[in-house]
Amino acid sequence: MASTSPKTTTAILQRLRFFMRNSEVVKQPLQAYIVPSGDAHQSEYIAPCDCRRQYVSGFTGSAGTAIVTEQCAALWTDGRYHLQAEEQLDSNWTLMKEGVAATPTQADWLSKSLPEGARIGVDPFLLSVDVWRPLSEKLKQSGRELVPINQNLIDLVWDDRPASPSNHIDIQPLQFAGKTWQDKIHEVRGKMNDKDASVLVVTALDELAWLFNMRGSDIEYNPVFFAYALIGMDRVSIYVDEAKVTPEIHAHLTSDEHIKVTLHAYADLCDDLCRLEPHVSGRVWIPDQSSHGLARLVPERRRISDPSPIALMKALKNAAEIAGMQNAHVKDAVALCELFAWLEKEVPKGGMTELKASAKAEQFRSQQADFVSLSFGTISSSGPNGAIIHYQPTEASNRPVTMQELYLLDSGAQYRDGTTDVTRTMHFGEPSQLEMECYTRVLKGHIALDSLIFPSGTKGHVIDCNARKALWDVGLDYMHGTGHGVGAFLNVHEGPQYISFRTRPTEVGLEEHMVVTIEPGYYEDGLFGCRIENVCLVVIAETAHRFHGKDFLTYEPITLVPIQTKLIDRTIFTQQEMAWLNRYHARCREVVAPVLKQQGRTEALQWLLRETEHIE
Amino acid sequence: MASTSPKTTTAILQRLRFFMRNSEVVKQPLQAYIVPSGDAHQSEYIAPCDCRRQYVSGFTGSAGTAIVTEQCAALWTDGRYHLQAEEQLDSNWTLMKEGVAATPTQADWLSKSLPEGARIGVDPFLLSVDVWRPLSEKLKQSGRELVPINQNLIDLVWDDRPASPSNHIDIQPLQFAGKTWQDKIHEVRGKMNDKDASVLVVTALDELAWLFNMRGSDIEYNPVFFAYALIGMDRVSIYVDEAKVTPEIHAHLTSDEHIKVTLHAYADLCDDLCRLEPHVSGRVWIPDQSSHGLARLVPERRRISDPSPIALMKALKNAAEIAGMQNAHVKDAVALCELFAWLEKEVPKGGMTELKASAKAEQFRSQQADFVSLSFGTISSSGPNGAIIHYQPTEASNRPVTMQELYLLDSGAQYRDGTTDVTRTMHFGEPSQLEMECYTRVLKGHIALDSLIFPSGTKGHVIDCNARKALWDVGLDYMHGTGHGVGAFLNVHEGPQYISFRTRPTEVGLEEHMVVTIEPGYYEDGLFGCRIENVCLVVIAETAHRFHGKDFLTYEPITLVPIQTKLIDRTIFTQQEMAWLNRYHARCREVVAPVLKQQGRTEALQWLLRETEHIE
Repeated sequence: MASTSPKTTTAILQRLRFFMRNSEVVKQPLQAYIVPSGDAHQSEYIAPCDCRRQYVSGFTGSAGTAIVTEQCAALWTDGRYHLQAEEQLDSNWTLMKEGVAATPTQADWLSKSLPEGARIGVDPFLLSVDVWRPLSEKLKQSGRELVPINQNLIDLVWDDRPASPSNHIDIQPLQFAGKTWQDKIHEVRGKMNDKDASVLVVTALDELAWLFNMRGSDIEYNPVFFAYALIGMDRVSIYVDEAKVTPEIHAHLTSDEHIKVTLHAYADLCDDLCRLEPHVSGRVWIPDQSSHGLARLVPERRRISDPSPIALMKALKNAAEIAGMQNAHVKDAVALCELFAWLEKEVPKGGMTELKASAKAEQFRSQQADFVSLSFGTISSSGPNGAIIHYQPTEASNRPVTMQELYLLDSGAQYRDGTTDVTRTMHFGEPSQLEMECYTRVLKGHIALDSLIFPSGTKGHVIDCNARKALWDVGLDYMHGTGHGVGAFLNVHEGPQYISFRTRPTEVGLEEHMVVTIEPGYYEDGLFGCRIENVCLVVIAETAHRFHGKDFLTYEPITLVPIQTKLIDRTIFTQQEMAWLNRYHARCREVVAPVLKQQGRTEALQWLLRETEHIE
Repeated sequence: MASTSPKTTTAILQRLRFFMRNSEVVKQPLQAYIVPSGDAHQSEYIAPCDCRRQYVSGFTGSAGTAIVTEQCAALWTDGRYHLQAEEQLDSNWTLMKEGVAATPTQADWLSKSLPEGARIGVDPFLLSVDVWRPLSEKLKQSGRELVPINQNLIDLVWDDRPASPSNHIDIQPLQFAGKTWQDKIHEVRGKMNDKDASVLVVTALDELAWLFNMRGSDIEYNPVFFAYALIGMDRVSIYVDEAKVTPEIHAHLTSDEHIKVTLHAYADLCDDLCRLEPHVSGRVWIPDQSSHGLARLVPERRRISDPSPIALMKALKNAAEIAGMQNAHVKDAVALCELFAWLEKEVPKGGMTELKASAKAEQFRSQQADFVSLSFGTISSSGPNGAIIHYQPTEASNRPVTMQELYLLDSGAQYRDGTTDVTRTMHFGEPSQLEMECYTRVLKGHIALDSLIFPSGTKGHVIDCNARKALWDVGLDYMHGTGHGVGAFLNVHEGPQYISFRTRPTEVGLEEHMVVTIEPGYYEDGLFGCRIENVCLVVIAETAHRFHGKDFLTYEPITLVPIQTKLIDRTIFTQQEMAWLNRYHARCREVVAPVLKQQGRTEALQWLLRETEHIE
């Protein structure tokens, strides 16, 4: 990464500023233009045609907001991306490090940088209502105005902007989905009834895919397709480009006697929403997490702005989804045991690189049944690159993987039966004392959170610190959340549960049958990164008491990949922690070894057996 | 408590409902009327004349909101008060248990109970903007309206309403305040400058008292006085009844050459605020924690709504305040050592009661230097009364304190040099196994949080669970926060830092020199309660590393009262925990014993020495 030079943005900014004052595009000149990271569906990961913030700034991370004024250009991003953004931004840009106390908020910065009366433009379809509203109010209070500009200015500047993807859609079979889309619609209507809603507007792509038991490939790594839906009490309208709808999908959706589904052009949603509202008796449920562009088509008093009920339904996995997730992780463990056995053999020979390891991981995964794609860009990082939290190797940044440095691999795949996401940190030689101490404290944190027993409904921000305590003890920490939900053959990041020191207004408490990652880490800038991540199922804990009749919960690891023991500093590792690790490794061996044997992967089996030996 | 019968509210509700539809009082009939708990300064503890929610409902707890519709009356309160409210509400009332999942929010309940178009009245001076705004929006979205009614309807119903208190004000000497009010004003003006504010409206009573180094006695236990202030860049206006202003106070405020202070009648603030706004150049800073009634006098675009800067200034204690708090707690420890030594002698004789113990605690405290009053109503509770979290004994509820039941004492005092708040749980006979287990787990939680090392700026909700983990392990919990800020000879509860699983929008992170309580508990309804509470100073921790150059923090107990060791279940108490307790007791002995000796309190000294013996 160190050797890549940042993208030169001078000409792009010049052209953007031209359109900001061009009266044929904007009624009155804009003193600033905001370029958010997402798409019109508020997706975290986006299609190439939607990478507008990346196009204008050169910064490729998954989260961040660019703001361009007549004089300045500034980019806000969080702790995962500070190092990466510093390397990717050219001198036109100022990096605004979110999470650092001195960093101004976007509203404060705009108020300080711009004169009173300034107009700040943004594409209203790219900002959710819950981001739009406070920003707009804050700016209004300071005498500035947030102005919706329907014509996206970046699209005007961006000559060779890729076309919107139009890949076909597949059916997710009932054996993996576990519930028919008709049953799901029935459940959604029950929740609409509770709120006296006549129509629910579904805009989140993974909610659409989950609800209708369909999967697409419009966004790399995310098996979703561009569409919207209006769920009414007596009909369902889906807005999706015709080209994506195969005859099978058409039949899947429209052959039900009891639930009438009609298909419409993707672009027709706005018009239909405007026309619809006066004709429905109840209110229109548009979650505040949808775009301001859509929500403003319905008068506020007719709107229900609560979070979509589908997010929570999707997060509570059914038995088929849980079985699928477990099976996907066994296959993933097979692939990773092979990879690590192979790396252990190859690294000492020399010539191993981050990219080679990454490609090999994909190759091993792709040999497993029902493999579809990776679930995100593989983070394969050696030595100092490991400290760039969301690093992905490029030809320019590619480092050797050696016996001298820590190697961190954060990777996952989409299988038809489930989505995986696992991080392991390895040393193929003799680790330093600092590497061992940090690794051990990260592992202690992982174990502490995994072993925690907590009341059902506890929000993630309340328990996040259990994963940090062992680091805090010696003045260390990490600047990212500790866990996220994972989709079942869906997006690798999903809510509405999170485990982070940050709180989110839509955050819900943890419940039985949710799936979350546990992934504490530690990053020593310029030296190394380490992180240990499992996907876990939230399960009922057996407790002697049940306070106020509540369930108490704990975690059960779904990921079953050995955790390197030679990196453990035994002087700070307790007997209890050792017992956890032995139990975990026994489970890895019990479940994964028979599959390795059956697939005839002998070297990987040897590696697994050795790495999971009981230790004292 | 069990034997007190609830207040009969039928006639009061009848009269209130009469005024809700009386066109001489309200323009159009109200379908509901909200009676919040606070006063016009959003105080937690209030003067008798402001106990409107208590008057209308009979419920005496410090937190809760009553809503009266034409048909129903409902009271929302949190987990500390569920048992108490159940006993105090008559059959006109429905208890809405906050913190229980099935409990509707006030807005949801109003929307379900009332027809569309319904008008819900409330005194706008009794709701802060940050409560008013979301409630009003939520109701508006559902087609109902929140209507400000300046004439308080309870005051119309309440024939024998007490007069507003008018006690005189004292100067808080510099030796205790540590900083002149002129220096504080200077600092406040710096913070106003940062926000381009021309005027700061100060409405919180403890902020006023702290800012001007003055103390009053208008509210029981809280050394504050009713007043408002407008801090301008070249003058300061204080709104306070003339009767409270002694010549000394007049001189204290108006004799400064550089800062011009003028005094005005308390009731003149609203008029002055209306007149003021057009004449100031910058904006008017009215925190959203002030009343909607006041804030709406300034147009929104001229308003700064951020939290008052004084809250955080006050929370960061200066050296004189810290020394004062420490000294106050030593005196408090002397009084409590005496009390517990006395109880240990008296309880076996029989005839001891909650009220007698409570009176004796006050008597011992009042013998200490600079004693002013208690800092809150003493919670002296025996056996099942201990499970009523904010229980205060009355003649009707008074239980014997015996050798058979746990005794919980949560009490504190106002001394001129500091405010105290301490809880100890004791058994004077043979505790049961369950009592010991629960007590030990509460103590383990106390120690875990007290020992925690965490980054400066961490918010309380992130670390709260450390105090619960030992309870969660066996399926137990408690339904209140774990800690609160404490004033320096000011309110026993103060923000803006808190330690709770709940988050608050105004919550700030913990910083060095803050003072907080640590007070986990466990309550077995119908049997017992236990809680162990210390006031602690937030101090810098020595750590091997300093992540991102940050300070790491920990706690140093200010409270120095022995923690009963015979209640500890050794089978679940670790060596590390034992070491903490021995260190704590050594510190109690080191600091408190010489004072007991000096004051000639021999029996208490004997008791302290015995209770602080090193244990293995």
